[in-house]
Amino acid sequence: MEIKDKSEKRYYFDWAATSGNCACDFDKSGVLFGNPSSLHYEGRFAKNTLEDARKRAAAVLNVPPETLYFTSGGTEANSIALFSGLMRKSKGRVIASMAEHSSIREGMETLEKMGKPTGVIEIDSTGRVTPSAFKKALEKNNDVRFACIMSVNNETGAVTDIPSIAEIIKKNTGAPIHLHCDLVQAAGKIPVDISGWELDSASISAHKLGGPRGIGLLYLRRPVEIFYKGGGQENGIRGGTENVTGAVILADCLEKLAEPNALASNHANAKKRMTNLINSLLSTGRVTLIPQEAKTQENFSPYILQAAFNDIPGEVMARALDDLGFSVSTGSACSSSSPERPVLLAMNVKEKLRIEGIRISQGWSTTDEDIDKLIDAIAQILKFL
Amino acid sequence: MEIKDKSEKRYYFDWAATSGNCACDFDKSGVLFGNPSSLHYEGRFAKNTLEDARKRAAAVLNVPPETLYFTSGGTEANSIALFSGLMRKSKGRVIASMAEHSSIREGMETLEKMGKPTGVIEIDSTGRVTPSAFKKALEKNNDVRFACIMSVNNETGAVTDIPSIAEIIKKNTGAPIHLHCDLVQAAGKIPVDISGWELDSASISAHKLGGPRGIGLLYLRRPVEIFYKGGGQENGIRGGTENVTGAVILADCLEKLAEPNALASNHANAKKRMTNLINSLLSTGRVTLIPQEAKTQENFSPYILQAAFNDIPGEVMARALDDLGFSVSTGSACSSSSPERPVLLAMNVKEKLRIEGIRISQGWSTTDEDIDKLIDAIAQILKFL
Repeated sequence: MEIKDKSEKRYYFDWAATSGNCACDFDKSGVLFGNPSSLHYEGRFAKNTLEDARKRAAAVLNVPPETLYFTSGGTEANSIALFSGLMRKSKGRVIASMAEHSSIREGMETLEKMGKPTGVIEIDSTGRVTPSAFKKALEKNNDVRFACIMSVNNETGAVTDIPSIAEIIKKNTGAPIHLHCDLVQAAGKIPVDISGWELDSASISAHKLGGPRGIGLLYLRRPVEIFYKGGGQENGIRGGTENVTGAVILADCLEKLAEPNALASNHANAKKRMTNLINSLLSTGRVTLIPQEAKTQENFSPYILQAAFNDIPGEVMARALDDLGFSVSTGSACSSSSPERPVLLAMNVKEKLRIEGIRISQGWSTTDEDIDKLIDAIAQILKFL
Repeated sequence: MEIKDKSEKRYYFDWAATSGNCACDFDKSGVLFGNPSSLHYEGRFAKNTLEDARKRAAAVLNVPPETLYFTSGGTEANSIALFSGLMRKSKGRVIASMAEHSSIREGMETLEKMGKPTGVIEIDSTGRVTPSAFKKALEKNNDVRFACIMSVNNETGAVTDIPSIAEIIKKNTGAPIHLHCDLVQAAGKIPVDISGWELDSASISAHKLGGPRGIGLLYLRRPVEIFYKGGGQENGIRGGTENVTGAVILADCLEKLAEPNALASNHANAKKRMTNLINSLLSTGRVTLIPQEAKTQENFSPYILQAAFNDIPGEVMARALDDLGFSVSTGSACSSSSPERPVLLAMNVKEKLRIEGIRISQGWSTTDEDIDKLIDAIAQILKFL
């Protein structure tokens, strides 16, 4: 099959759905054909390559290599962590914030069906879990053993103060609570400190970091019992022949984007571009940021913005932009088939704004010019709509 | 990281663990970055590409496109099928043959822990499930609702007569029984007929077909309820952003290797090479085939051979061959960490032969010369051992 690409230039502003440019070298695919579980030369070579990738990823993330497990992506990493509780003898409750990715949100429904007690953690009007909301969730249920709280809200870019959440768990006098943190929109974008935050588990996806689909990382402070089993690969945490090529590229991507200096520099540039975009949007007098606090960009990821164009449905705006060559989204790609905006709903965003909201997300290689072009395109559309 | 390859020529005879050469073009990775769930141009392009890959795979496999779901590989495809039963209201029993891949075998243990009734289907001394063994399993348990039986035994290459099994299910007067067939070692190697065999589900792995890791196919005659959820991708059967590149390459691989004429031609050549290898091995007077019926190659995949060298532990033989540049295995790669040979044990193979057995597996691009070299290398080793 011939892969044809559109000839005109496209401006991609949906990096939160999948990263646009490939930061790293994808040309290694053919080389690494050995099965790391095989004992012969090809197998040992693949195994060494895999372990080298794990060590490199661990060095960037500042965690022991043996706490990292390669998975098929962020969804699977979330699922392994979430469902591990089902196999435990302890009957504790699993709670999750109302901002979580569908792999957690829908997974919770499965847990319920299996008879596991569950509960929710409220989010505030910015999309964050506040320490007081978390405390409230623990007060409401005294049997919580597992909590899922994402770092960066993938609809608004709001950053939850995970260290404060971890502090509450530490001071909690009841049974230990496992803290799982979805770092999919955080890794390589904002500083994360898995060890310092004392996370029990965390998930990362390569394709949000310039890498390919089919590869992700699960951090586990301690091994857990898993549900879907295979041949004991990844120390029994993730069955299936290891995706060595994917692991190598993911490690490359982390080295390129999550290394502190590179991250800080990309972050500063992204923030400058985002501030420019926000100011331009607000100067039209026809835009409402969701939430309005995004204006200051304080405790927001500069890579994600949710904005509503007054009286223009998000779908119409997204389509108009698409026609001009600009890709934005009307919410998480993983929920695009549903007209609901469950995260915005949980934030108590009014229906009108939920309908009007579009998500503009940028990446490390987005340029000032890209933003200028987007601003121009929006101005052009606003003349007619 | 620099990827170095060994400079001397290697002869790869562990295709059952992962396929050696890449049959298809891997250079598409960078192009297909859109998220198929996104509604903009990049998303629609990715979606179209994905659906085109699904249609092409479906055409080769002669099934409706909507019955194929891309997964992260064979293990996940097996797991989705196996665990779907947990969510059903019906309390039926799940049975699996003793030859199944560890993703099924270990998954059965998880089902047991979850309180699901399970059972085993005996295999005969060749590694096959005979119709009478299957009947026996159904007689023993009158509540069977789900049966897992692989097509090609990955240790011996023995081919189970799946149509006869399906016939028994059809004639069974009790509640319907879901027949799941692991086609990982069958697809592209022996003729398979998913529709004709009336399978309810089946699994395929790309990396056994010259494709990359991280992509596989699950066939489902009817949708099932799944366990690990995501964003509703793949019609709700497999969550996680779709691996479009992987899907395209898997479709390419299927078109290249599972297309009936190509398959027949590769199969005939593989059988000629395998017959040559078997005759040479037997002529040394020091080799026992496991099972001995492999000699005739009747109802065996010509891509897999299990053979024991008298009084030479398999590990020693495999290491000696590895040192000379030949890669063979001492059993399924997915079980290489375990000294047990559970499938051979279930076949009632004596302990001495279980210790001595090595698996020699070839692929579509293995040459007559490769086989001659292997025969020479074995002769050389036998002089000293």
